[in-house]
Amino acid sequence: MQIQDSSPDEIDSAVLAASQASSAWAQSSAEDRARLLQALADDLQGHRDALVDIADDETSLGPGRLNSELDRTIFQLGGFADHVTAGTAFAASEDAPIAGAPPRGRPHLVRVRVPVGPVAMFSASNFPLAFSVLGGDTASALAAGCPVVVKAHPGHPRLSRYVFEVARSTLGRLEYPQGLLGMVEGAGIDVGVRLVRHPDIAAVAFTGSYRGGIALWEHANSRPRPIPFYGELGSINPVVAMPSALANREEEFAQMLANSMEFGCGQICTSPGVLVLFEDDTADVFESALRDALEAKSLHAMLTPGMKRNFDNGVARLFDTPGVQAVLGSKVVHGDHMLPKPVLAKTSARNFVAQPTLHEEIFGPACLLVRVTSVDEIEDVLRAIGGSLTVTLWGAEAESADAQRITACATRIAGRVLFGGVPTGVSVASSQHHGGPWPASTQPFTTSVGYDAMNRFLRPVTLQSPPAWVLDRKGRPC
Amino acid sequence: MQIQDSSPDEIDSAVLAASQASSAWAQSSAEDRARLLQALADDLQGHRDALVDIADDETSLGPGRLNSELDRTIFQLGGFADHVTAGTAFAASEDAPIAGAPPRGRPHLVRVRVPVGPVAMFSASNFPLAFSVLGGDTASALAAGCPVVVKAHPGHPRLSRYVFEVARSTLGRLEYPQGLLGMVEGAGIDVGVRLVRHPDIAAVAFTGSYRGGIALWEHANSRPRPIPFYGELGSINPVVAMPSALANREEEFAQMLANSMEFGCGQICTSPGVLVLFEDDTADVFESALRDALEAKSLHAMLTPGMKRNFDNGVARLFDTPGVQAVLGSKVVHGDHMLPKPVLAKTSARNFVAQPTLHEEIFGPACLLVRVTSVDEIEDVLRAIGGSLTVTLWGAEAESADAQRITACATRIAGRVLFGGVPTGVSVASSQHHGGPWPASTQPFTTSVGYDAMNRFLRPVTLQSPPAWVLDRKGRPC
Repeated sequence: MQIQDSSPDEIDSAVLAASQASSAWAQSSAEDRARLLQALADDLQGHRDALVDIADDETSLGPGRLNSELDRTIFQLGGFADHVTAGTAFAASEDAPIAGAPPRGRPHLVRVRVPVGPVAMFSASNFPLAFSVLGGDTASALAAGCPVVVKAHPGHPRLSRYVFEVARSTLGRLEYPQGLLGMVEGAGIDVGVRLVRHPDIAAVAFTGSYRGGIALWEHANSRPRPIPFYGELGSINPVVAMPSALANREEEFAQMLANSMEFGCGQICTSPGVLVLFEDDTADVFESALRDALEAKSLHAMLTPGMKRNFDNGVARLFDTPGVQAVLGSKVVHGDHMLPKPVLAKTSARNFVAQPTLHEEIFGPACLLVRVTSVDEIEDVLRAIGGSLTVTLWGAEAESADAQRITACATRIAGRVLFGGVPTGVSVASSQHHGGPWPASTQPFTTSVGYDAMNRFLRPVTLQSPPAWVLDRKGRPC
Repeated sequence: MQIQDSSPDEIDSAVLAASQASSAWAQSSAEDRARLLQALADDLQGHRDALVDIADDETSLGPGRLNSELDRTIFQLGGFADHVTAGTAFAASEDAPIAGAPPRGRPHLVRVRVPVGPVAMFSASNFPLAFSVLGGDTASALAAGCPVVVKAHPGHPRLSRYVFEVARSTLGRLEYPQGLLGMVEGAGIDVGVRLVRHPDIAAVAFTGSYRGGIALWEHANSRPRPIPFYGELGSINPVVAMPSALANREEEFAQMLANSMEFGCGQICTSPGVLVLFEDDTADVFESALRDALEAKSLHAMLTPGMKRNFDNGVARLFDTPGVQAVLGSKVVHGDHMLPKPVLAKTSARNFVAQPTLHEEIFGPACLLVRVTSVDEIEDVLRAIGGSLTVTLWGAEAESADAQRITACATRIAGRVLFGGVPTGVSVASSQHHGGPWPASTQPFTTSVGYDAMNRFLRPVTLQSPPAWVLDRKGRPC
C-alpha cells in the first residue's frame, strides 16, 4: 500500500489537537481514564476478525500469533485501566513539616506526579497490535494522563488506519476529545523528525531500529528544549548454558531455543541472538540438536522486503567475519521477497570479544554460538555485549561461586535476567522491566512493558507548603 | 591556588580503583554503607573549624553560611545512612506466578534495583561542602552502592583536597577500599571529558553552568555506549505575586525577596531571577520597597573572578535588551575583583516573552520584574521560561479559578512549586524534588536533593523465575 507522508500542516494539527486536549486529560479522574482504556479494549475485541485478517495480510505473522498478540493488546489496555483505578502510580509522598532551622527544620513537602503532556509514539513493525496504534506505549501514556500522537509504522498502514478508526469511534461514542489520539504517517524519517521537534511534544516513545532510533533521539536532544526520548533500539539477548543444565536434556533445550528463534521469525526484540556454551561433548550434542531442530522449521515471510534485505546483509556480515563458522545456513542472499531460513553460526569467546561486528543485533532468525572454556570467558562475552534487554541463564538454579558470578555479570548488563526458559515472551505485569543498558534502551531506568511504563510520562513535582485545596485535588494539581 | 590538571594516567587510575571496588560495594550490606556514611559525617564534624576557614578563604561565602552548609552536609550524609538502613530504596517488587497461557499466565517476576557502577561526580562551585567532594551527589551514590570519582571544582581546590584527605583517612581507619572515592582535578574541560568518556564510568552527576553541562552531556551521549547524565544546568526560579498577597505586606515581602537574592550573593541554583507582578499600585509600592531593601545590602565577593565577569556580562546584556528599564544598578562593569551590587530591572510581560535573552539565567544577585496585566500574561511568562527548578506562588493559598490556573501552569514547568516563601533553601527530605524540565535538568524525572537522589544510581532489573538463593541475597544479586 502506498504511504503518503502526512503534510507539515497535518502533523501540526494532530499535535495541536493533542495539546488542546492535554490539560483536561491531565486533570481527568481515574474513572474517566479507566473507562476509556477499557472501552478501547472492548472495541478491539469486537473487531477481532477484521484486525487479524488485515494484520496477517500486511505482516505475514499468521493468525495464531496475531490472535495472541491481540489478546495481549486487549489485556494490556484493561490492565492499565485497572492500574489507573488502583491509583498507586499517582500516590503522593509526604514529609510533615518540622519546626526549627534547617537542615532538620523543613516545610511541609508533598511530592506528586504530573503528566508531561502530549507524547509522540513511534509504532513498532514487529508488534502491529501490541506495540502499535493502541499498543503498550499508547495505553501507558493515556493512563498517565497524556494525549498521544502516533507515528504509524509504514509496514502495516491499513491495520494502523483501521485501529485508529476504531479508536476514533470509541472516543466519539463516549464523548472524549478526539485530540486524545492523533495519527500521522510517513515512509521516511521526515514526518517523525517534525513530530519529535514539535515544541508541544513533551516526550517520545520509540520502538524500532537502532539507526532510526538514534536519528530521532538526536533530534530530541538537539531541540531548543530537549525532551525525554524513551527508545528501545535493539538487543542481543544472550543465553548462557552451563554444562549442568544441558546434560541429558540437550534435545529439550535445543527444541525450546529453536522455537524461541522461530517466534515472529526472529523479528522480536528479545529473540536470542547469542548462545554461550562450554567447549564440551554436551555442547556438541546440543549444537547438533539445535541445528536439526532449526533445519526442520519452515519460517513465514519477514515483515517487509527491507527487513529481509537487512537480515540477509546481517547474515552475510556474520559469515564474513573472521573466525566465524557456519553451522546452518549460508550467506547466499535469497532475495528480498523470498522466505528466510534460520541461520546458526559459531565462534570462540576470544573471537567474539575481538570482533565488534559480532555484537550487533541481526534482526531475524539467526543465532551465534559462542564457545567458552571458563566462567571468566562467559564474563568476557557478556561484558563485550554490554547492554541487553535480557540475559538468560541455564544452570544457575543452585547456588555456587560460578552461579553467583554469572548472575552478577548478567545483572550488570541486562534489564531482565531469566533463570531458565527463553527470553521471548514478556509478561505485562507490575514487576516487569523491559529496558536495559545501551543500546537496549536510551533510558535504561525505565520500562516500556508493564504498568511502570506509565512512569515515563509522570514527572515528579514537589509541592512546598501546599494549601488544602491543592491537596484535595489528589495529585492532579494541573 | 594553581591547579594542575590530573594526567590521563591519574584519571584512569582513579576510575580503575573505583571499578575494582565496585562489585564488592554493590553487594555490601546496609550496615556497611550506613557505617561509612555516618563516619564521614562525624569526621567532617571533627574538622569543622578548618573546613569553614579554608572554605571561606576560597569562596568568600562567610562563616555563617559555611557553618550552615557544613551542618547540611553532615545531616545529609547521616540522612542517607538512615535511609540505607531503612531499606525502602532497595525494596523489591514482586508478581507471583500465574499458571496458564499469556497474557494472563506469567512466570514469577521480582524486580530489584542494582547499583549502576562507578559514578563521575562534578562538584559545584557554589556549594563547596554540600555539593562538592562529600556532598549530596557523593552521599547518594555511595548509599546506592556505587563508588565515586569526583572532579573537584577549581574554585575551591584546597578545600576539595582537605575534604578528600578526611575521607581517605575515614576509609583507611574503617578499612574500606580507597577506591570507593577518587578525585581528579582540572581547570578546564579536558579532565572532565576524559572522565565522562571513560568506559568504566556508568553515570554522571553534574551541577554547574549551562555551557559546561551541555558540553559534558554531549560527551556522555556520544560515547560508544551513552550513559545517564544527571545534570543540573540553570534555572530562573520565577516568583509570581498575586495582588492579594502583597496588599499591605509590601515591605515584608520585599525584605524576604531581597534576603533570598542576597543569599550566597545570588549564586544559588534556586535564586529568584524573575518576579511576576501585576501593573497596580501595590506592585509599585513593593517595587520601591524591594529596591530600597536591596540598595541597603552589602554583598560579599563572588565565588571567582570569572563568575563576577559572567555576572557583569549578564547584567550588561539585560540592560541592553530593548524594553528593559533599570530599577537598581547599571551596566557599568565594576571589574572582576570588585564586590558585586544587586541589580533590579523591569519589563512588560509582552517584552519578556518576545526577548529570548531575558529567559537566560544571570548567575548572581539580579532580578527582573515582569509586569503583567492579566492571568493570561502570567501563563505566557511562565511558558516562555519553560523549565525551572522552582516556581513560587504568592497568593494562591485560597482556591479560585486564577489560583488553579497559575498552579497548573507552574506545575507544568517546574520540579518544585512553593506556596509562599522563597525558592532558596532546599530541604533534604524523602519527598523533595530538585530537578525540572530543561534547562533546569537534563533528566527532569530525577532529583539531586533528597533521598530519592539514590534512584539515579539504582537501575531496575527484573529477575524472572529467580531461584531461592538469588532472592536470599535481598536485592543484591550482583
